[in-house]
Order: sequence, then structure tokens, then C-alpha cells
Amino acid sequence: MTTGTRRRMGVEERREQLIAVALDLFSRRSPEEVSIDEIAEAAGISRPLVYHYFPGKRQLYEAALRRAAEELTARFVEPHEGPLGARLLRVMERFFDFVDEHGPGFSALMRGGPAIGSSRTSALIDGVRQAAYEQILAHLDVQQPTTRMELVIRSWISLAETTALLWLDGRPVPHAEQERVPRAELERQLVQDFAALAAVSATYDAQMAGLVRRMLADEPVGGPLRVPEPTF
Amino acid sequence: MTTGTRRRMGVEERREQLIAVALDLFSRRSPEEVSIDEIAEAAGISRPLVYHYFPGKRQLYEAALRRAAEELTARFVEPHEGPLGARLLRVMERFFDFVDEHGPGFSALMRGGPAIGSSRTSALIDGVRQAAYEQILAHLDVQQPTTRMELVIRSWISLAETTALLWLDGRPVPHAEQERVPRAELERQLVQDFAALAAVSATYDAQMAGLVRRMLADEPVGGPLRVPEPTF
Repeated sequence: MTTGTRRRMGVEERREQLIAVALDLFSRRSPEEVSIDEIAEAAGISRPLVYHYFPGKRQLYEAALRRAAEELTARFVEPHEGPLGARLLRVMERFFDFVDEHGPGFSALMRGGPAIGSSRTSALIDGVRQAAYEQILAHLDVQQPTTRMELVIRSWISLAETTALLWLDGRPVPHAEQERVPRAELERQLVQDFAALAAVSATYDAQMAGLVRRMLADEPVGGPLRVPEPTF
Repeated sequence: MTTGTRRRMGVEERREQLIAVALDLFSRRSPEEVSIDEIAEAAGISRPLVYHYFPGKRQLYEAALRRAAEELTARFVEPHEGPLGARLLRVMERFFDFVDEHGPGFSALMRGGPAIGSSRTSALIDGVRQAAYEQILAHLDVQQPTTRMELVIRSWISLAETTALLWLDGRPVPHAEQERVPRAELERQLVQDFAALAAVSATYDAQMAGLVRRMLADEPVGGPLRVPEPTF
């Protein structure tokens, strides 16, 4: 009879541990740079044992990605209380937290990581976008969005993704000393962008106009949904 | 000595013909639905002869995509004359022409066509985005954009892409009779969106503020860069 000093993990527990270790590694580097050997080492188990739980790197990557998608989706959840601008701003803060924590992995994924991208990873990303869309509709208290409203919300979601990716790059413009735009400014700006895009659409669509009216009715002076007066 | 009734095509001419035929087919259906046999038939040549010019479907797809990228990039070119809003609106019209002509292929590609996506196709797409970015900077007469300006322009480009994709879907909301938003409205709205996003950013950035001032100085009353007065 062998009694290890370390407790043996159960199957589910081991799977969970491997997913957590993989997600951590895949967050810090792009998928092609992470090897099964490295995941095994970080988990403190042998390479064959990793393969016992996951047939290959792709499956482990997809499991890690599913975990990340659930985590991000959970961060979209926000109580339906108080002005909409403050709610959206809190979600933006948590979104940037997530992007910050998973930076290189998020970039590789969203830029269509050719090495490991698949229709399953695309479906996971679309699922997160759909969750974001539905959360926004729920907060706006809209059951039947018009095509224009759907367009504003979905295209704003892609604006937020691109903004986060560019922020991650820190994209230093080669010929100038550029500072990275502070996160907090971008979070606020995205909320203002939502209001600005909704206002443009409102000139074409009565439902959007009603929505903008309701959004602003609850918004305090200086709230993030109020596009500040131009300084020019 | 054989003398065909039809003139023999030269190597380059044949390659060009195959690319044109492939681009047409790949525009109308997603890449996985188009076979080499079909391309051969449409080009009026044998399947082995297609392989003589292109080692496989992937290479032919990439050549067709390169052609499409060049074509789209050419449509961004616009004389540096007249108000900026009208210039941007004309480019948007040509962009939607392109999207309309290559609909299903454009969708499959931009949604990260898993079957045939590669780092080369991603690089081609990024090249088109970069060309769009540089054209906008040139029209704005900006040599050294700030990080914030770059962010506004690049994130607006992704907004335009998403808007075009949603327009292509016609995305009928299941529970309501929705009309497809007219193309012309979206083209104009995107120009207004650009102005609206720039105006938000201008509250954080002196260079952006100066830019918005210059943009609007030349813009006639009712021009597309003028965000219309809210109707609510």
C-alpha cells in the first residue's frame, strides 16, 4: 500500500488544475509559444499524464478558452440599479481588468491566432459577444431592439474590443514619444462613445431616440454617458 | 502541329484568368464551399491544369484574396479636394459597393474563416486596414498622430467593418418584422460616427480638438461630418 505525502487529486480536480495552469500560461504568451511540456511542468505532473486528461494542446487550449469566456461573461453581470452610465463604466473597468490579466493571450486570440484558431474558438468568442449584447439590452430594458439599435450595440462592442487591443499594444507611434493612454480614460471614453453613437443613430430611429432620452434622464451632470462639451 | 481554334493563353494570362474566376466564386460562397473542380469548370480548363498554376486551393484562395485586397485598397483613394465629409462619404459608398459585390466571401473571411484562414490571410486583412488608416491620416493632413488619434481612427475602421458585416447579414431580428437598414443611411451614419468619436476624444486631446476644428471648418451645413441636431 502506497500512501503519498501529497494527496492524490481526483479526475475532475486534476482537469480543473490543468485548465487553470493552461489558462495562466496561455494568458501570458500566445498559444504557439506554450508547450505541453511546460504545462506539465507547471502542473507538477508528467507529460503523459497531461495527455491522459486532454488528447492534445488544442483541446487544452479550448478548455482554457472556455474558462476565460465564462470568466469574462461573469464580469458583464451588473446590478440593475443606479444610472446606466455608472453601470456601464463598472463593466468597462472589469473588462479592462480581464484584458490586462490575459493580455498576450487575448491579443493572440482576437487577432485570429492562426496556429490554433478553429470554428470552436470563433464560436466561443461570438458567445461572449452575444452575452455582452444581451446584457446591454437587459440594462436598457429593451425586449425588441430595432435593427438600428442592434447595429449600434454590436458595432460598439467591436469598437470596445479594438480599443482594448490597441491599448494592450501600447502601440508606440515610431516617430514620436507617445504615452500610453491611461486605462481609466479609455474606459470612460468607451461609455461616452456608446452615448455618442446612440445619439447619431437616434436621428434615424424613433426607438433609439426614446432610448437616448431615457438613458440621459437618469444620468447625473458629469456622468460618463454625458458627452462632455467640446473644448474647442 | 496543332492549331487550336481558341488562342492559347500565356502563363500569366492564364493565372490572371484563374484568379478572376476564383475571386468571383469565393465572393459568392464561403471558401469551403468552392471546389477546385468548380474553379476548373468555370475557367474552362481541366483540374490538373489548375494544379499546374496553383499547388492547391489555399494558394488560389490567397491569390484571389490578394486581388480583392488590392481592389479594395484602390477604392480608398480619393482626391484631396473639397470638404472632408464628402470625401469620406464617397469612400464609404465604394466600400459598401465592394462589400456588396463580395458579400458571402467577405463575411466568411472577416469572421475568421476557420477552414482556410492563415497568418497570410490575416496579414492581407491587416494590410487593407493599414491602407485605410494611412489614407485617413493623409486626408486629415496629419503626419504625426497622437496615440489617441490613432486609436480613434483604427477603432472607427473596426466599427465600419462590423457595420458592413451586420448589414450583409441583414440580421433579421427573429421576433419582429425588421427592415434592412438602407446602405446609404449606414454610409452616412459611419461618417457621422467618425465625427462623433473624434469629438469625444477631442475632450481629452488637444491635437484631436484641433483636428475636429479643422474638419468642421470646411464642412457645409448639413454635411455628413456634422452630427445632426438630436430630434429628442
